[in-house]
Amino acid sequence: VNIAVIGAGSWGTTLASLLAGNGHAVRLWAREPEVAEEITRSRRNPYFLTDVLIHPKIKATVDPAVALDAAEIVVLAVPSRYVRSQVRAIKPWLRGSELLVNVAKGLEMESGWCLSQVILEELGIIPESEQDVVAVLSGPNLAQEVALGKPGASVVALPSPERGRLLQGAFSGPTFRVYRHTDRRGVELGGTLKNVFAIGAGLVEGLQLGDNAKAAYLTRSLHELVRLGVALGGNQATFYGLSGLGDLMATAFSPLSRNHRLGLAIAKRDRAQFEDRTSRMVVEGVETAGLARNWGQKLTISLPITEEICRVLFSDLSPEEAVANLMGRSLKDEQE
Amino acid sequence: VNIAVIGAGSWGTTLASLLAGNGHAVRLWAREPEVAEEITRSRRNPYFLTDVLIHPKIKATVDPAVALDAAEIVVLAVPSRYVRSQVRAIKPWLRGSELLVNVAKGLEMESGWCLSQVILEELGIIPESEQDVVAVLSGPNLAQEVALGKPGASVVALPSPERGRLLQGAFSGPTFRVYRHTDRRGVELGGTLKNVFAIGAGLVEGLQLGDNAKAAYLTRSLHELVRLGVALGGNQATFYGLSGLGDLMATAFSPLSRNHRLGLAIAKRDRAQFEDRTSRMVVEGVETAGLARNWGQKLTISLPITEEICRVLFSDLSPEEAVANLMGRSLKDEQE
Repeated sequence: VNIAVIGAGSWGTTLASLLAGNGHAVRLWAREPEVAEEITRSRRNPYFLTDVLIHPKIKATVDPAVALDAAEIVVLAVPSRYVRSQVRAIKPWLRGSELLVNVAKGLEMESGWCLSQVILEELGIIPESEQDVVAVLSGPNLAQEVALGKPGASVVALPSPERGRLLQGAFSGPTFRVYRHTDRRGVELGGTLKNVFAIGAGLVEGLQLGDNAKAAYLTRSLHELVRLGVALGGNQATFYGLSGLGDLMATAFSPLSRNHRLGLAIAKRDRAQFEDRTSRMVVEGVETAGLARNWGQKLTISLPITEEICRVLFSDLSPEEAVANLMGRSLKDEQE
Repeated sequence: VNIAVIGAGSWGTTLASLLAGNGHAVRLWAREPEVAEEITRSRRNPYFLTDVLIHPKIKATVDPAVALDAAEIVVLAVPSRYVRSQVRAIKPWLRGSELLVNVAKGLEMESGWCLSQVILEELGIIPESEQDVVAVLSGPNLAQEVALGKPGASVVALPSPERGRLLQGAFSGPTFRVYRHTDRRGVELGGTLKNVFAIGAGLVEGLQLGDNAKAAYLTRSLHELVRLGVALGGNQATFYGLSGLGDLMATAFSPLSRNHRLGLAIAKRDRAQFEDRTSRMVVEGVETAGLARNWGQKLTISLPITEEICRVLFSDLSPEEAVANLMGRSLKDEQE
């Protein structure tokens, strides 16, 4: 299959390599010329996962015409805040028959929209119509591990099961197992909302509260994620899958996750240093936390964990106080 | 409240201390005289969590008459294989008005019954009747962390919500948050079946497959746990709570879990040494794995992960092959 990957960050670069390894013809579009040049020259990305060798058959370019030429699958791998402008920028080269796969996890800040909505709007495609070729790929996929060939699994979701099967086949390989789904909204919201709780998991980790506390925190977080995600249009069962529960576990327990590291840094009173050091990396969970809190208030859904995380992020509440607030709530039935 | 804890293993001793710390009058019954004597003498259990100081107000005894005198709550904290004989042994001292709380996680091997069923049968109580005073306490509770006062949460389940409220109040304290539930069977099965998958998590950990693989493994494990648990009579939502998902996460990620350590030891080709060193500790997940596989076959429920774990445990399949078998299955819809 002829594939264009748009965006040469850590995930875009990793997926390009994975797809090339599966035998596809892959072009990787980079915004910055030095990135494309360096990849061509040394098979390494100069900014992300710099010690990982990129598959030699990938063609890196800054020219969208070259990247998108005859592409059957277009993988969108830019940070969520650039998705709209990026789609607008590549639109002239799209023929309309490509399958578009968004792999960023986040929301459009201004509208609060899911990224598939943004893409569909920009392309003038009616959601769920026969022309709806927009998919999302989401799951517990720390780029660094996938890049090293460690085993992992993910979910690809779009309305058409046949197109899902095609994408499933393109992305699946000996170390990367892809499941199909038709609940695109649920898969997208799962991958997005989990970032909020991954920040909190970093706080719990940083406070050294132990494995019982982490497990309880994540269970109650998932409960909250499901409540909000269902109110926003996802199916409950979806959130208990790889994009949602699975993704939450990977980011919650792994220091490779940026959201997790932010929480950890705050708990260790080292937030400024964290934000400095990773300025190239976007911490998607921060903006999502604010959006989630607003939705909770608008839809009158109780989101106690999200609210405490927002207080820590935006109002300088100490992590210790946030945890004490959560432990001190009135005693409940588990399913309340 | 007047409380008897039957069994001075690590969890029984820890719960006795926790309950005494909540202001209750607690008697701890030990099978072995030297355990009762040592606890009385030095406030330490000679065999379990030996460096943890036990609450000074606990009275340790080997005499069931002393332990059970005027008890309003009886906590059963013996390994699952001794639950039936232990209930038979204390029955003469029970008045019938006590709330009985089983805290062991396992099944009766011979019958495959849940332990609450075993207890109800031994006491001649009709399940779900007004006389049904049998509760279970289950959740992500590594004894060592609870003993050290680290924060945690758990679930107490029995048919009567009022009695649930009473138990919830007795066990809850500043660092231990207890939720109520009425799906006793689901809570019990969640805490039990998760042991099987905790062994597998130890295998994944031991093979150093990374955080993506762990997250994917646990997500698919939960999927499998829910499928079997629902077929055995639990409610689906229960398994996504603290006893089930939560408990699975605590045991799956923590080296403090015996089931996890067994998996780890097998992956490191060190099984014999593990079994030797911890001969006092029961690895509940091994027997449960065999039972689960049989149920799956009888009920024709597909349990691919359980089957691979059983092959590793009982047929000397290598962990590497087990993982390869799971990764190589045909590509699925996520909710199949």
